[in-house]
Amino acid sequence: MPSAAELVRTVIHRRVYDLEQPRTATMPIHPAHRPGYLYQLHRRHGDTYAPSRFGPRSSASGVVVMMEHTGTHVDALSHQACDLRLYGDIPITPQVETPTGFTVHGIETMDPIVARGVLLDVSAARGQDPLPEHYRVTAADLEEAARLGEVTVRPGDALLVRTGYAKLWSDEARYLSAAGVSREGSEWAASKNVRCVGCDNMTWDEVGERDPESSATLFAHLHLIARRGIAIIENLNLEALSRDRCYEFLFVCTPLKLVGATGSPVRPIAVA
Amino acid sequence: MPSAAELVRTVIHRRVYDLEQPRTATMPIHPAHRPGYLYQLHRRHGDTYAPSRFGPRSSASGVVVMMEHTGTHVDALSHQACDLRLYGDIPITPQVETPTGFTVHGIETMDPIVARGVLLDVSAARGQDPLPEHYRVTAADLEEAARLGEVTVRPGDALLVRTGYAKLWSDEARYLSAAGVSREGSEWAASKNVRCVGCDNMTWDEVGERDPESSATLFAHLHLIARRGIAIIENLNLEALSRDRCYEFLFVCTPLKLVGATGSPVRPIAVA
Amino acid sequence: MPSAAELVRTVIHRRVYDLEQPRTATMPIHPAHRPGYLYQLHRRHGDTYAPSRFGPRSSASGVVVMMEHTGTHVDALSHQACDLRLYGDIPITPQVETPTGFTVHGIETMDPIVARGVLLDVSAARGQDPLPEHYRVTAADLEEAARLGEVTVRPGDALLVRTGYAKLWSDEARYLSAAGVSREGSEWAASKNVRCVGCDNMTWDEVGERDPESSATLFAHLHLIARRGIAIIENLNLEALSRDRCYEFLFVCTPLKLVGATGSPVRPIAVA
Amino acid sequence: MPSAAELVRTVIHRRVYDLEQPRTATMPIHPAHRPGYLYQLHRRHGDTYAPSRFGPRSSASGVVVMMEHTGTHVDALSHQACDLRLYGDIPITPQVETPTGFTVHGIETMDPIVARGVLLDVSAARGQDPLPEHYRVTAADLEEAARLGEVTVRPGDALLVRTGYAKLWSDEARYLSAAGVSREGSEWAASKNVRCVGCDNMTWDEVGERDPESSATLFAHLHLIARRGIAIIENLNLEALSRDRCYEFLFVCTPLKLVGATGSPVRPIAVA
Repeated sequence: MPSAAELVRTVIHRRVYDLEQPRTATMPIHPAHRPGYLYQLHRRHGDTYAPSRFGPRSSASGVVVMMEHTGTHVDALSHQACDLRLYGDIPITPQVETPTGFTVHGIETMDPIVARGVLLDVSAARGQDPLPEHYRVTAADLEEAARLGEVTVRPGDALLVRTGYAKLWSDEARYLSAAGVSREGSEWAASKNVRCVGCDNMTWDEVGERDPESSATLFAHLHLIARRGIAIIENLNLEALSRDRCYEFLFVCTPLKLVGATGSPVRPIAVA
Repeated sequence: MPSAAELVRTVIHRRVYDLEQPRTATMPIHPAHRPGYLYQLHRRHGDTYAPSRFGPRSSASGVVVMMEHTGTHVDALSHQACDLRLYGDIPITPQVETPTGFTVHGIETMDPIVARGVLLDVSAARGQDPLPEHYRVTAADLEEAARLGEVTVRPGDALLVRTGYAKLWSDEARYLSAAGVSREGSEWAASKNVRCVGCDNMTWDEVGERDPESSATLFAHLHLIARRGIAIIENLNLEALSRDRCYEFLFVCTPLKLVGATGSPVRPIAVA
Repeated sequence: MPSAAELVRTVIHRRVYDLEQPRTATMPIHPAHRPGYLYQLHRRHGDTYAPSRFGPRSSASGVVVMMEHTGTHVDALSHQACDLRLYGDIPITPQVETPTGFTVHGIETMDPIVARGVLLDVSAARGQDPLPEHYRVTAADLEEAARLGEVTVRPGDALLVRTGYAKLWSDEARYLSAAGVSREGSEWAASKNVRCVGCDNMTWDEVGERDPESSATLFAHLHLIARRGIAIIENLNLEALSRDRCYEFLFVCTPLKLVGATGSPVRPIAVA
Repeated sequence: MPSAAELVRTVIHRRVYDLEQPRTATMPIHPAHRPGYLYQLHRRHGDTYAPSRFGPRSSASGVVVMMEHTGTHVDALSHQACDLRLYGDIPITPQVETPTGFTVHGIETMDPIVARGVLLDVSAARGQDPLPEHYRVTAADLEEAARLGEVTVRPGDALLVRTGYAKLWSDEARYLSAAGVSREGSEWAASKNVRCVGCDNMTWDEVGERDPESSATLFAHLHLIARRGIAIIENLNLEALSRDRCYEFLFVCTPLKLVGATGSPVRPIAVA
């Protein structure tokens, strides 16, 4: 194994792609997470500036109020359950689910993700940018995108799917009508034993798709998170990766250890 | 330059050190940032569980309220000013400093940090773990710690200083009395042209130190942030790095793009 | 003066009109005060129910996040300024305007309002219920409504104007297009030396009216609050008073002592 | 019945006692409701002052974050349960207890309180001001205080008990050690069929008292709220009433209609 010095040399001068969308009070919010996000500055520089007593320094600061599933974020395994059991067949008891969050599978239990990342650019593969509204990405689409990128998805990868909707981040109505991954597309992803998946839309899943028997929505939230323990990252910006045809990269994503929380805002990066 | 595939192979199976402290409502809070941090779970799995209508899936979520300088975090350049000017000699006008944050040097303007990291383990070098309360780390201490670690600080590095106080994270009174870096220690760090600095205490600076002329406190906040544009990361946990005598590593820290904010919570990692 | 016992007998069996609109996350919000209001229950009865150890009692509680100008509320005199001076010709210095609010004219300095109340039901007087969108209530309208109610406005009164928009509380778009009091209507109210004014819309003023010279909006906010020290109460529900043709009553409104705040939510009542 | 005009004349020139404590970030907080309360001003007058374009007017505003049981407040009937049933034998189902609050007995269902008020000044009656820490007020104490005030408690009254702790509002440690009403004192109050009770401490109950069989605390919270439907008002300031030996008065308390919430901040008044 190369030394730490060699490791550093290998990495630090490469291109870093920032995959996070900017966070503002007007960004798109999932209906279940309204009002979403708020930042306000209350302490301003003039408040602490008193040069005769304290020298030339002053400081400013603010407060953030946010639903934890706003903006670019990763879902904790506690975010979803199947028949009231969390991943690992853990029943949801009052000891597990408390007023200050989960004592099992809180986001603080998710290790930093340092993995091989692959981009499946379905938008490019289909020549539709973005994909049509509410389009459901199939397994065949994902395979076609893998061929376009000349990449093979492997166990442990971070698998990122591009619909092209990231550029509509300032248009909530269209963004919430984005394409997403279909049930069979999610099953394909799960079959690859990836570490996590991510998408440039609000929910990974296509929100209109319903299980014909149960009317269940958001199949991947059930299947990947609650049954398979595979994290989902939402609201990624994959535009620059697509532009540069960068399909394989080092992927780093570090969820905050908000103890007990069901998710965390993140700023994932791709290094290539 | 090695291919992305080689890059990935070089990195992904190495040890990842998590440098973030856990975030809870009882973690130590700087007096200027009270009440600090709050997480509450309001939507529970039972609320959305209706198997006959929606299948076996349910979800839970919560809300975070936080001053942006709580827990492990990085200060934006807008957090500090010198004579009411931000780094780069930018006057603080109403256009720059607004109710929803800064239009210049907000934390969203800080690029992800992917840099060589070096640990200067002053606690180990001095054989005091932790260092005495309110001890001021000198330039000589930093040089001695660099000798101990057999590392040289270089331009662009992330320079991390260990006082040993991370283990007192659950003891607010002692944590807020931590050792910190002295004025001359901070000048030494600045002279190395590092990308950023970090420490395992609340403020990097030793909070009791005052400029003899102006009574100014927190010299590094003035000098590193407002004059030199060098970011400060606070409340790191450097215990595992110290235990493993890991003094050189790949350092990754990705501040959230909280548009206009004066800082961001982060989960920095060291890869070695 | 009658004894306290007689006072009580005079008051307690009379009809009490509740003039507050219900507070929910979906109530209309003034654009400057988004996202407005949020209530979430985090501690539920099941969390503390442990009968073998603590008996049959359990408790539940939640958290409120609100801009202080949401829902039915009263504006503090610190909410508005004229040429950067608060009512009483107080210059806005850093000592007056601080990160945690105002040290002068914060809402905690407003005494409870126990006054004669008069309803000027302009909607009824004009036979339009509600008044047309963006209609500007004139001084003549107010006088006509006083004639309809057979009331004379006197110094010290709480003067309430009804546009009929309270019933549109669940229709934000129409509610924000409500009728309001014109500049000359507000001057008429001020000339009566009332204690406070109130209206069943978001802003008392008609939001579209602009001063021809300065383009200034919300004339009454300048004139009543900043120049005359007359409080404005917004988002009242005056429907039941109108239905009962109740034009004169005891008015009670008790702003919370949110120290330093620029306003307070209130539940005003009319006793008749 | 006297006319509204006479009613107004009877009331408006009398003395109004303000029974609310001031709300600040440093007021005493019950441990279950930390961090309690926060107000921050983010929009300042300078931000909107642009005289050439908008005339001389400017405005300022802030945000409140509060647990609903902070400061002077009234508990909703949904705040407490007995064997997981709310007052009126209502089982706590997911339809009743939701992420955004209660659909039954939320504070919005509590009518404004306009009632005869009586002060039982136990502190004065016992000649201890304040009462000793953790002293438990007995039924005999309440009767003695009624004799001192020459008042009889009647059905429908607002019954206020004074311990003398209001003056310790800025001393959290002592305030949280206040005297309170004992179990038998609360039973005495309930036997009078009052509309509501109130006290100048954090919990009405004496916090140290435990049921010998079940270890249950806060007996009145169980008995008055969950079994009898009698509201409890906490953190009153009764000092001025005591000073003026005002034992009978008109009591007005108007809980905010925070839909679904388990309580509301209030500014109760006594008119005498």
